[in-house]
Amino acid sequence: MASNDIERFEVAATYSEAVVYIGATVYLAGQVPENTGGQDITEQTKDVLSLIEQRLTVAGGDKSRILTATIYLTNLERDYKPMNEVWNQWIPSGTAPARTTVGVSTLASSQWLIEITVTAARK
Amino acid sequence: MASNDIERFEVAATYSEAVVYIGATVYLAGQVPENTGGQDITEQTKDVLSLIEQRLTVAGGDKSRILTATIYLTNLERDYKPMNEVWNQWIPSGTAPARTTVGVSTLASSQWLIEITVTAARK
Amino acid sequence: MASNDIERFEVAATYSEAVVYIGATVYLAGQVPENTGGQDITEQTKDVLSLIEQRLTVAGGDKSRILTATIYLTNLERDYKPMNEVWNQWIPSGTAPARTTVGVSTLASSQWLIEITVTAARK
Repeated sequence: MASNDIERFEVAATYSEAVVYIGATVYLAGQVPENTGGQDITEQTKDVLSLIEQRLTVAGGDKSRILTATIYLTNLERDYKPMNEVWNQWIPSGTAPARTTVGVSTLASSQWLIEITVTAARK
Repeated sequence: MASNDIERFEVAATYSEAVVYIGATVYLAGQVPENTGGQDITEQTKDVLSLIEQRLTVAGGDKSRILTATIYLTNLERDYKPMNEVWNQWIPSGTAPARTTVGVSTLASSQWLIEITVTAARK
Repeated sequence: MASNDIERFEVAATYSEAVVYIGATVYLAGQVPENTGGQDITEQTKDVLSLIEQRLTVAGGDKSRILTATIYLTNLERDYKPMNEVWNQWIPSGTAPARTTVGVSTLASSQWLIEITVTAARK
């Protein structure tokens, strides 16, 4: 395929925030909270979902077109339920993705309680 | 693309059990054991693989057409080998997917020893 | 689709090192260090990235066409920075994938500090 079959958004040395392949599938980088001055899981989840929404929009996607989500929590036992409450309100009815949630030992900042990676269909 | 390029199966508020994109790729939600009355890893793996098989069938896939599998184990050191024995018998010869296996600290139920997420090609 | 829409490379009972779907997307198995005689994260990361490069080449991909990378570290706090130094030098400028990095409790060998799973676009 031609070399312009891959589009990359917000490209840095380490990662791109979004990558689109053959105009069809949007892969986002793992999204983490921007504000981490002691926010709890509810605030951090809202923050992460807001970033996902922004970055999907930039890459030509939409939160109603998410195919998969992988959710990493550093304190799953405590945070699973409040995370889900925010998540369930955020997902448009009838468009929930195939989802996986696991508890991990650490994320790249010790202040982050959550990281979410999504794949979406472009509009 | 048209809005009917995404099909979702067993859609709930939190997740769909399967999502199919442009009739080509099947994304399953992370599958976890249904029966958790003290089952060991052998029983839990059989249970999860049986669910994967059922859900792939509903979504138009097949266990011989799995592209990727990510396996999360809460006690990898103890359970990796017996999990693999069940896995190897289940995978049709010559059709093993690209696989990743990691040990995680927790899954959404403390009774689950295993969660498996697969992507498959539709038939 | 026809049954030859899936190509598998280095197929074993447990997994294939690479799977290509409809000639477009390359899915690699999670790559781990081959040499583990006490190597530190810098050496292990170089080893893993070299394997990724080899296996992408065999499957018709290229390190400049990686779409996503998921990096699993068993000692993220200590190893994140030196891993990134190797990674940043390895990724061709302007082609960084959508990346997720998490700390996990264990990998399938206790000698492995890192496992990386990538998806790439075929050339």
